Amino acid sequence: MTPLLLALELVGVFVFALDGTLTALRVARLDLVGVVTVGMATALGGGVVRDILIGAVPPATFTDWRYLVVATVGGLMAYAVGRHLERLSLPISLLDAAGVSLFAVTGTSKALDFGLGAGQAIILGTMTAVGGGMVRDVLLRRIPVVLHSGLFVIPVVVGSVITVAASLTGLYGLGAAVVAAAMCFSLRALGILLELDAPRSPAATSLLIL
Amino acid sequence: MTPLLLALELVGVFVFALDGTLTALRVARLDLVGVVTVGMATALGGGVVRDILIGAVPPATFTDWRYLVVATVGGLMAYAVGRHLERLSLPISLLDAAGVSLFAVTGTSKALDFGLGAGQAIILGTMTAVGGGMVRDVLLRRIPVVLHSGLFVIPVVVGSVITVAASLTGLYGLGAAVVAAAMCFSLRALGILLELDAPRSPAATSLLIL
Amino acid sequence: MTPLLLALELVGVFVFALDGTLTALRVARLDLVGVVTVGMATALGGGVVRDILIGAVPPATFTDWRYLVVATVGGLMAYAVGRHLERLSLPISLLDAAGVSLFAVTGTSKALDFGLGAGQAIILGTMTAVGGGMVRDVLLRRIPVVLHSGLFVIPVVVGSVITVAASLTGLYGLGAAVVAAAMCFSLRALGILLELDAPRSPAATSLLIL
Repeated sequence: MTPLLLALELVGVFVFALDGTLTALRVARLDLVGVVTVGMATALGGGVVRDILIGAVPPATFTDWRYLVVATVGGLMAYAVGRHLERLSLPISLLDAAGVSLFAVTGTSKALDFGLGAGQAIILGTMTAVGGGMVRDVLLRRIPVVLHSGLFVIPVVVGSVITVAASLTGLYGLGAAVVAAAMCFSLRALGILLELDAPRSPAATSLLIL
Repeated sequence: MTPLLLALELVGVFVFALDGTLTALRVARLDLVGVVTVGMATALGGGVVRDILIGAVPPATFTDWRYLVVATVGGLMAYAVGRHLERLSLPISLLDAAGVSLFAVTGTSKALDFGLGAGQAIILGTMTAVGGGMVRDVLLRRIPVVLHSGLFVIPVVVGSVITVAASLTGLYGLGAAVVAAAMCFSLRALGILLELDAPRSPAATSLLIL
Repeated sequence: MTPLLLALELVGVFVFALDGTLTALRVARLDLVGVVTVGMATALGGGVVRDILIGAVPPATFTDWRYLVVATVGGLMAYAVGRHLERLSLPISLLDAAGVSLFAVTGTSKALDFGLGAGQAIILGTMTAVGGGMVRDVLLRRIPVVLHSGLFVIPVVVGSVITVAASLTGLYGLGAAVVAAAMCFSLRALGILLELDAPRSPAATSLLIL
């Protein structure tokens, strides 16, 4: 794994650990161990799923101690800070957007490194980006947020497609990675600020009307 | 993988994508991305779990583009049609029965191809058949249907045992696969039409009486 | 795998099958197949996750018939006995404590055998120990117990650290395994009897006060 990929992954792990821990504090009555566990599962879940699917086992999470340390530190920091914050909705969403953007790029890039095709790399990048949040929501007994509100998948696919395009044209590097992640983050943040949703399903729409 | 196995798998993926998408439309308020994601997870979940367990990574889903295309098309078709249907319970159940039957046969057959024993192949065939539906239900925050109502596992085991028997006696081929899937489907459909359940647990029974 | 590891694993599988089945009988309305499926998933889930993560696929569960037989027998026994028991809370908790203790030791030990470092082995041992219970709770649509009450993770980490220490100093064997499991079990049982919890999160605390 290149130093660039590793650095982006670790930043992604860190912000997802903050996101998962703060979400757990906000929506459920867990104990300290539970809160930090949810934070770590959010931070590491997407990457572990990706690594299992591409056959990179044991996952990087378990062979490189920095992942576990960064996830643990992030979880404990959010736990310590969480008690002083009242309404965490917006910062949590922005942290989640940052994590999603970084993992979209690293997930796609790692899948390409393992020889998968462009389409598969986009799917795996998307799973890496949204997988941790889905694990978090299943553990907290929520329908995964990604399935019902906000623009998640569209920004991720944009970031992932940019990564693939840069890679196929030999332009992938720090610059391209930053552009891809920034584009994903911008779209996601715009979605948060404007409260954009993906088109609702007709059944849901009719339920809302009734 | 033989062309027969591939063809059965793709038909199974298609009907499960319809099933998962229609179920998501019916029971939850998701957006377009969420509905199609649940459909794809239903269609691909069982096979991915099986492939991870037998060590066939990356799973066929991610190395053969036809899986993703068929699942996506199925999901989008069901989404487009779903708005015109009011009561989808019976057709969903029959689609689910068809998917379960096809995956019971392909899951068992693939496990045998990878050198697992007869008993393990039956277990893996069963997991392939019911795995997608369990993923669907967990994402929709429901207790998996397979655990509490209807005849699911018994028909699947019958189809899986027929597959193993045909394979051990050297008779496995299109004919045997069709017989195994048809037998599974018939039992499952009979269960749906007659509203048969597996025996209830005594605790549940006493709860119903009280 | 050594005979010692195998024996401890099978005992762990058995008590977890009892635990999962009795829990399913107690908290949900499942049918016979569902109850036994939850029992088997509880018994086998942690080990399957560990084996996938360390690259030991197909997991031992699917290559050694004894795992499936022991899990099935445990599930059916608990199902048969369950109808005669009214309040199963304490025995279920103690069975769960026994399973957790055995899997903490075997999970850690197997991870070390596969060449993982001490820290990673402790994490994987912990996942093996609590993984089955988390699968059980997700299937029963509960927030995993390990996240919100009781002392689970601390005893498991103690047992796992003892296992690592014994292994690094060349002292690992039946004696060390029993000591590690017994220490974990004692702490867990003490937690159950004294109703100790890990520290609650501040948000949860304030919710309780309000």
